[in-house]
Amino acid sequence: MRIPLDSKDLPDKWYNIVPDLEFPLPPPMTSSGYSLSERDLESLSPDSIIEQEFEKNKREILIPREVRECYSLWRPTPLFRAERLEKILATPARIFYKYEGGGFSVSHEANTAVAQAYYASSEGAKRVVTATGSGEWGVSLAVACNYFNIKCRVYMVRSSYEGKVYGRYLMEILGAEVLPSPSDKTLAGKKVLSQDSQSPGSLSIALSEAFEDAYSDDSAKFCWGSVMNHVLLHQTVVGLEARRQMQRANAHPDVLIAAIGGGSAFGGLVFPFYPDRSQGIKRLAVETTASPSLSKGQYTYDYADAGGLSLMLKMYTLGHGFVQPGIRAGGMRYHGISPIISLLYREKQIEAKTYMQREAFEAGIIFARTEGLVPSLECSYAVKAALDEALACKERKEHKNILFVLDANSNFDLDTYKDFVEGSIEDQPFLEEHVRVALERLPRAMAE
Amino acid sequence: MRIPLDSKDLPDKWYNIVPDLEFPLPPPMTSSGYSLSERDLESLSPDSIIEQEFEKNKREILIPREVRECYSLWRPTPLFRAERLEKILATPARIFYKYEGGGFSVSHEANTAVAQAYYASSEGAKRVVTATGSGEWGVSLAVACNYFNIKCRVYMVRSSYEGKVYGRYLMEILGAEVLPSPSDKTLAGKKVLSQDSQSPGSLSIALSEAFEDAYSDDSAKFCWGSVMNHVLLHQTVVGLEARRQMQRANAHPDVLIAAIGGGSAFGGLVFPFYPDRSQGIKRLAVETTASPSLSKGQYTYDYADAGGLSLMLKMYTLGHGFVQPGIRAGGMRYHGISPIISLLYREKQIEAKTYMQREAFEAGIIFARTEGLVPSLECSYAVKAALDEALACKERKEHKNILFVLDANSNFDLDTYKDFVEGSIEDQPFLEEHVRVALERLPRAMAE
Repeated sequence: MRIPLDSKDLPDKWYNIVPDLEFPLPPPMTSSGYSLSERDLESLSPDSIIEQEFEKNKREILIPREVRECYSLWRPTPLFRAERLEKILATPARIFYKYEGGGFSVSHEANTAVAQAYYASSEGAKRVVTATGSGEWGVSLAVACNYFNIKCRVYMVRSSYEGKVYGRYLMEILGAEVLPSPSDKTLAGKKVLSQDSQSPGSLSIALSEAFEDAYSDDSAKFCWGSVMNHVLLHQTVVGLEARRQMQRANAHPDVLIAAIGGGSAFGGLVFPFYPDRSQGIKRLAVETTASPSLSKGQYTYDYADAGGLSLMLKMYTLGHGFVQPGIRAGGMRYHGISPIISLLYREKQIEAKTYMQREAFEAGIIFARTEGLVPSLECSYAVKAALDEALACKERKEHKNILFVLDANSNFDLDTYKDFVEGSIEDQPFLEEHVRVALERLPRAMAE
Repeated sequence: MRIPLDSKDLPDKWYNIVPDLEFPLPPPMTSSGYSLSERDLESLSPDSIIEQEFEKNKREILIPREVRECYSLWRPTPLFRAERLEKILATPARIFYKYEGGGFSVSHEANTAVAQAYYASSEGAKRVVTATGSGEWGVSLAVACNYFNIKCRVYMVRSSYEGKVYGRYLMEILGAEVLPSPSDKTLAGKKVLSQDSQSPGSLSIALSEAFEDAYSDDSAKFCWGSVMNHVLLHQTVVGLEARRQMQRANAHPDVLIAAIGGGSAFGGLVFPFYPDRSQGIKRLAVETTASPSLSKGQYTYDYADAGGLSLMLKMYTLGHGFVQPGIRAGGMRYHGISPIISLLYREKQIEAKTYMQREAFEAGIIFARTEGLVPSLECSYAVKAALDEALACKERKEHKNILFVLDANSNFDLDTYKDFVEGSIEDQPFLEEHVRVALERLPRAMAE
């Protein structure tokens, strides 16, 4: 059952959670350990983005007309009740999902991409630069750059560049310049290549390269795909719409679920329900066992990128040098988690749970065969958690309303599902040793 | 600009064009040349489908509640005005497109898939069987079969099975059984393999196999992906919605455009505007130069499948044995065209135009970079025709309204676009000799 929303209900403001936080949000720091000023970000980000990043007072931020016009191309997105799934599980729970994968881009990431491309373009930048793992984020930004007539350069993790070819093709078809990272275009890339000419790269390395690129060109701005406050701010359109749709379905959510990599899908769904917290909503962030930043990380200041080029954030982190096992869900492999979400976890406002990739993909296939939609690999973790919550409701005879975000479709992931169906996907153990080594290399002065 | 439609405006009836035709529609014949009766189709199709196939009087057919509930998962679909494209072309024309690729399935083919799966299931069939080229149709049917708890077997053209792997993966992920055709499961397949063990297959051969499979199992029904009257009937939801949306945009369409393979996308868009024909609407079917059934075919009775197992249809055909050149747009390679559309073309109610694949893909990329959506290869032909119409309006300073259907997204086609961007796609010449040979093998007794 689809619970639609009229065009006129497209939000005209983003929701800024920061003024509503009951706990002080630790500020970002420069990479050398000083308090980060707005000026420190000037060469990296458009002024409007910097202002949003530091906004502590306004609960609502007006969405520019140009951005809202873009949103209206695919928003409001539908919210579905998964009645076939409920029936198969024989659960008294009601399962809802907000679907972000049917728009022009393949995922929710377009929500911030069009905003960032707009601000960069309107403030005179000629080019934006970013880093991407499996390509969803890069694709969203490539689409957005075409809308605002601005060039797009993407540093793509080399293992994804060579493996997940569809994301790369799509960015190139859309006119973006895609470079495999580590590349020989930047000092950061060259440094990695000098140590390991066959380096598969990582999102943290690609970020270092993109930062360096943006710093070295006055006409270029860097775009963040996740983690930062302003990205999660833009993503709140997802939860704002979902909140109205749940009201329309006369269903107060008892459990909110999203998969978490850096936090943009989670924050986008969950933050707009934060003012309802007196109503005892469970908020569940679902991690992959192989990269459990919240569940196994340390709450401390760490670099956003491998080379420590940009800034430090207080967050749950596995260490900026953490080498992830080769799991398939590229979007869940970042070493840290959004500072706001990290704070909420620290203050026990949210919960975290991990799953192995095989159990997640199995849930993804159950969902695909009942609902007709194949979730992205990342979303399959959220699906697994939703199934488990629904089964727990069955056990306890509880009539809960479960809401999760299906933030992307499976365009880039069909080969992984095929490998799973054919039995060639192995689970990846949690590499405790890797985490220990990476955490030892945290910026010492800043550790708690 | 998106021109939405409320949920309540989802059509509750399909439009049957047959009673409105001004010219007698030649009936289907058995493969041995006798007039085909409803009973002849009983072992192949559900009764409700047979009734719809032969319906000559009712202009409106009620959409069953169960099918409408499925439609409501992704319908009404949006209609867009391509303002960025108009601006780049500097045309006074307004360009609109109906987008069918954002739903659960990847294309418009879900519109008939859910109807056919519903009727088969509700009349007691345990299994449906079909033939697919590049996989879009098979994927739609696989999704629909899950909705109605019925099994799905798909004969997939071997060259696509081995090449266009994503379509195959998706069907298998969705739980369908996919067999490469020619297979050794049927006499028709074995016959082809005995002549050429390396046969790449064709849609006509896959159809023969699927027909044979359905004939030999009382609990199985065959599902048609295109060509037949009932398929085009189900597709009219597209045009019915588009008609309302154009009214809402206060734009009377002057040109209607769709790519044509068997005719389901074209019929779906164009038929519901047929009652407006006094208003001088140009209706343009866009073919690939490599498989120009309307433009270069013969209007005569021909078999629907390579083996001549099922029935004969009066249609524009290149001959059921036509061997298509290796063009990429698999959906445009069928040898014939829907009998209704063939009749309309014969009576000069519609026009046809051909394009080479490179010019189509180039148009597809222009569209992707302005509108943000990468069209399927098939749709890129419609895009090319829309661009040319818009440029002609510029030349002639005409303020026309151009409407085309973007009936699928590019999920399965990104590798072709990548090859095109990299310069490794060649145009395929029109193979006059192949057409001549194929037309010589038409069922002689029936030829005009």
